[in-house]
Amino acid sequence: MKNHADLWLAYKEIKNFSDSSILKKFYISGASASDRTVANAITELKTGLKSMLGIEPDFIFEESSDPVKENSGKDILDNEEYTVSLREDGISLSSKSGAGILYAAFDVLRNVSCERDIKTTYAGGRTVRPSNPLRMLNHWDNMDGSIERGYSGESFFYVNDEIVIDERTVDYARLIASVGINGVVINNVNVKNAASYMITDRYFDKLAKLGEIFAGYGIRLYLSLNYASTIEIGGLDSADPLDEKVISWWKNKMAEVFDRIPTLGGFLVKADSEGRPGPFTYGRTQADGANMLADIVKEYGAIIIWRCFVYNCKQDWRDRKTDRARAGYDNFMPMDGDYHDNVILQIKNGPMDFQIREPISPLLGGLKKTNQMLEVQIAQEYTGHQIDVCYLIPEFKEILGFRTYVKEEKDTVADIISGETFGDRYSGIAAVTNTGNDFNWTGNYLAGANLFGFGRLAFDTSLSSEQIAEEFVKMSISADEDVVSKIVSILLPSREIYEKYTSPLGIGWMVQPGIHYGCSVDGYEYDRWGTYHRADHLGIGVDRSDKGTGYALQYNEPNASVYNDPDKCPDELVLFFHHLPYTHKLHSGKTVIQHIYDTHFEGYEEAQKLSEKWDSLKGKVDDEIFENVSERFTRQLANAREWCDQVNSYFYRKSGIPDEKGRQIY
Amino acid sequence: MKNHADLWLAYKEIKNFSDSSILKKFYISGASASDRTVANAITELKTGLKSMLGIEPDFIFEESSDPVKENSGKDILDNEEYTVSLREDGISLSSKSGAGILYAAFDVLRNVSCERDIKTTYAGGRTVRPSNPLRMLNHWDNMDGSIERGYSGESFFYVNDEIVIDERTVDYARLIASVGINGVVINNVNVKNAASYMITDRYFDKLAKLGEIFAGYGIRLYLSLNYASTIEIGGLDSADPLDEKVISWWKNKMAEVFDRIPTLGGFLVKADSEGRPGPFTYGRTQADGANMLADIVKEYGAIIIWRCFVYNCKQDWRDRKTDRARAGYDNFMPMDGDYHDNVILQIKNGPMDFQIREPISPLLGGLKKTNQMLEVQIAQEYTGHQIDVCYLIPEFKEILGFRTYVKEEKDTVADIISGETFGDRYSGIAAVTNTGNDFNWTGNYLAGANLFGFGRLAFDTSLSSEQIAEEFVKMSISADEDVVSKIVSILLPSREIYEKYTSPLGIGWMVQPGIHYGCSVDGYEYDRWGTYHRADHLGIGVDRSDKGTGYALQYNEPNASVYNDPDKCPDELVLFFHHLPYTHKLHSGKTVIQHIYDTHFEGYEEAQKLSEKWDSLKGKVDDEIFENVSERFTRQLANAREWCDQVNSYFYRKSGIPDEKGRQIY
Repeated sequence: MKNHADLWLAYKEIKNFSDSSILKKFYISGASASDRTVANAITELKTGLKSMLGIEPDFIFEESSDPVKENSGKDILDNEEYTVSLREDGISLSSKSGAGILYAAFDVLRNVSCERDIKTTYAGGRTVRPSNPLRMLNHWDNMDGSIERGYSGESFFYVNDEIVIDERTVDYARLIASVGINGVVINNVNVKNAASYMITDRYFDKLAKLGEIFAGYGIRLYLSLNYASTIEIGGLDSADPLDEKVISWWKNKMAEVFDRIPTLGGFLVKADSEGRPGPFTYGRTQADGANMLADIVKEYGAIIIWRCFVYNCKQDWRDRKTDRARAGYDNFMPMDGDYHDNVILQIKNGPMDFQIREPISPLLGGLKKTNQMLEVQIAQEYTGHQIDVCYLIPEFKEILGFRTYVKEEKDTVADIISGETFGDRYSGIAAVTNTGNDFNWTGNYLAGANLFGFGRLAFDTSLSSEQIAEEFVKMSISADEDVVSKIVSILLPSREIYEKYTSPLGIGWMVQPGIHYGCSVDGYEYDRWGTYHRADHLGIGVDRSDKGTGYALQYNEPNASVYNDPDKCPDELVLFFHHLPYTHKLHSGKTVIQHIYDTHFEGYEEAQKLSEKWDSLKGKVDDEIFENVSERFTRQLANAREWCDQVNSYFYRKSGIPDEKGRQIY
Repeated sequence: MKNHADLWLAYKEIKNFSDSSILKKFYISGASASDRTVANAITELKTGLKSMLGIEPDFIFEESSDPVKENSGKDILDNEEYTVSLREDGISLSSKSGAGILYAAFDVLRNVSCERDIKTTYAGGRTVRPSNPLRMLNHWDNMDGSIERGYSGESFFYVNDEIVIDERTVDYARLIASVGINGVVINNVNVKNAASYMITDRYFDKLAKLGEIFAGYGIRLYLSLNYASTIEIGGLDSADPLDEKVISWWKNKMAEVFDRIPTLGGFLVKADSEGRPGPFTYGRTQADGANMLADIVKEYGAIIIWRCFVYNCKQDWRDRKTDRARAGYDNFMPMDGDYHDNVILQIKNGPMDFQIREPISPLLGGLKKTNQMLEVQIAQEYTGHQIDVCYLIPEFKEILGFRTYVKEEKDTVADIISGETFGDRYSGIAAVTNTGNDFNWTGNYLAGANLFGFGRLAFDTSLSSEQIAEEFVKMSISADEDVVSKIVSILLPSREIYEKYTSPLGIGWMVQPGIHYGCSVDGYEYDRWGTYHRADHLGIGVDRSDKGTGYALQYNEPNASVYNDPDKCPDELVLFFHHLPYTHKLHSGKTVIQHIYDTHFEGYEEAQKLSEKWDSLKGKVDDEIFENVSERFTRQLANAREWCDQVNSYFYRKSGIPDEKGRQIY
């Protein structure tokens, strides 16, 4: 281990590499030698190969051409596609763009790091076209240095309302480019205080510099935008998207912004959501708001990413008709087709908010004529705060593989966001990121697997959770077979285990309000957030069938019928869709109450086993990494114990039904 | 209304005063004309009488003598006793001390403010001896300006770790002296950060000045002390009270402190409590710790007030044997008699923590050979945050009137803390205060009644809640008969109403964790604070009888037997002492569950009636006061509605037993 801040770019020395001679020469074709990304690719290859194998390769440039101008998702994919192939005396890397060459270089370095035989790997050539045009990270970093839902220190972008650019900035760009990220939103979607002034002279120089650094790694810089900028910084009395004064202000502002930050890719906007201002304030549609901005930024080749997280966050818990789960579809479906070409709707994977288990948002497979991006969260807000190990790639695989039935084929979420289903001009996937200024970037070292994995999966949705986990361990921790197999076997089931000891059967939300870590079964039950379990003496769950809120019918058939029927609905989501007696038999053959007891006891026991497995690695992995994860396992077990006992006690006290196995419930 | 920051010292102009001629001359005897308190008494009389009646009285000084040196509670009472009597051509004020003269002056001003006939009031002379030697306010103000459990702005003592002395400091001294307060602890009992340096040169000058201002109003300055000062500011490695190095450090420190702040009355100490360090850390007793400090400060005539709030704040909710209610008695009874003469144990009124209903601490009536002070809280931490109207004097009257049976007579709490029961050298009553830098001092203007009332009651425990409320309204708002009667009828039942819509039958703690405002039935149920209701499908309550934790047996007979038996235990405390089925019949004839439903619906309805009554005062009271209280009533009703619906829904969902009256439960 050189430095555990290097994560998967550790480039550890490899003692017995099969045959390294072919790595001594690289032919580079397609992209220009003068391209900064190509220069960075070469530097990276030099550094990595020297460090791992002691090789100092030569680079030969062949024919080059300019990449196509990007006016669609397909253009991006055409440019970023790359090929690695073998020559007699070296390796050829080719792509239409410098970014493609960079990805090719990282492809080679990854295969070397994983100690794969290079000639076998690249026999016949390997051409990779990214699965998704847009592969983004969203930072919820505030300019005061705090991070909303950050669990690994403070922001590395901001200190005291100033933008920080240092060695870590470059390291970060290298890390995320190496897994294929090509866009970063560097500020919180809740744009307040100093962040409202990002689009003013106060920050232009630093942002331009940051944009240049990112561009050198094939990454576009994006900003979250304050929809009410016309009022907050513009001195106008309105943010009405149809108001000529407003439009005119934005035109001037955007001209200035793109002049000063030429690398800027566009903006992310959270409007009319959780107290943020938006077009609804002026009786306008979401499309009115998004299109106004999009039309203005279009001439700069920029895009507007518009979040669909719009719902009533002041619900009365007594009201059983209003259903937060319905809100995204209800708010955005009626305008399908109204959004202009450079607007992309960013849709959270589920209809609620990143719970450990949710159904897929019905907007994915609902919208047919609108650019779409999937939003997931690797910041472990509801999934253990980077204290508990929770490898999220298996969840993302489920999401991506979900059949929406919007068409007869090519209808999965992966198909939709890749552009396959509808041939979208722009589409892709974004993750709310899990990084901070902790030395190892992600707090729990194993949470690095989610950062690595998200990028890898966004780039190639066909990769399996296991492949990704293996690569992460080999590159970041150790290529020792026993170590790899043990850590992979810790990562793979960790999300299921977290689900077991937390909230059962898709109901979610049994967390400490505000904090979102730790158990509180009734924590959100009488609150204003639309997040209820409706448990009483006889049963639990929210009736979202046609007899309840009707949410289930927002899906295409046959999904709608499956979710609508408690006997067909998958067990893991049954309480999301139905209010059921504790004695209801699940497909598993267990009653709801017995399922609750069993999964909670199991979840805790399985978490113990993960922890024991980690303990067995002492001395076999870097000491710092070992201690970092060990300390967190201690906290995870305390957390799991509380969840197990509190959930079981809560339901036992409420239902009066004893555990069939007579285990200790309080 | 002149200025509503004046509260009861508004000195409103009185149009039809019966006969003011006698108020033109004052004879002052006993205390010296050179005494600052006498000078302040004269200034106050001049200001007040001029403002109310346009009178400019003359003052004639008669024989004076020095007050006795105070070595006991009785000495304090001897000094502070005063007599107001009528002469042919004026009024005589006499006392052994300047403070007594000041109290006599405020006595006259109060009676004028209340528009009472002076000759009738003072016919035959009126001699008043304070009920309690120590009548203190405890500020939980932090030096950064925040106030722990403050609901009326920030601290007026501190800004940015500096002590502030301005006009408001004097106003505050006047306000509290006028109701008889004679001691103020100006910093939070949780002594941290800058406050640890209160006893260093950094703050001596300001503290000396503050002490002087207070002394001019008969008020002694006290400080909360960091028990671990030897470590935190002394550079020692121990705070062991028997360690010679520690003792020697304190001797030097105290010599310095009393040299620099000669008016200082002593210290308040929270040790071994909620994470604060203490003698337990070194295997020493609480008496060891308190006596060490007390012996050192004795030569400066100072006292050590030692809080009894010592309990295990890391309890496992699964553990039903440990009982936080037992902790005070268990920790402090074994050392009864071990505390030195200038140590006073400060005991919270209940065994838990200022809930809306608790039994009386069994230490009061347990301890026989130890100086004791009662601690109550007028900061409305658990009683509505000075949003909800909750006039606490009726509660304090109940507490004071409680018969402990520690002796055959003179056994009430009032008797114990006055010194009547055991002839304590020092005793009295302290309130955690409800003031802040809000212009009107207490946030909700009506919360001023608790500040006023606490002082009045501490000075004269024979006053009724109604008398006190009447005086507050007449002096602070209006002497109009209709206004007085309406506001008094808002204040008097307000505590009972708050109790009705919050937690039932003495169980307490159904509050939002941390915040302590708003309902959360399970908020503390699975937490570490020892505060549980143990509700399940069949019943609710904590078994503290001889079959449970045995807490009930900490009381003297017959209290022990009464509390121990669910059929004898008073309804309002029955769930504090017993776990009972929802179907258990109370003395009222109602079942527990029906009592819960009824009181919650009633509580909300009665709160609405209070609000309506206040609304009817529009135009009859000062507009600013009207709006201040109105705005809070709006919030109180929202709060009461939530409590009512959440508590009823919680218990209906859990018990499955419907409301007999078929009202809406969710």
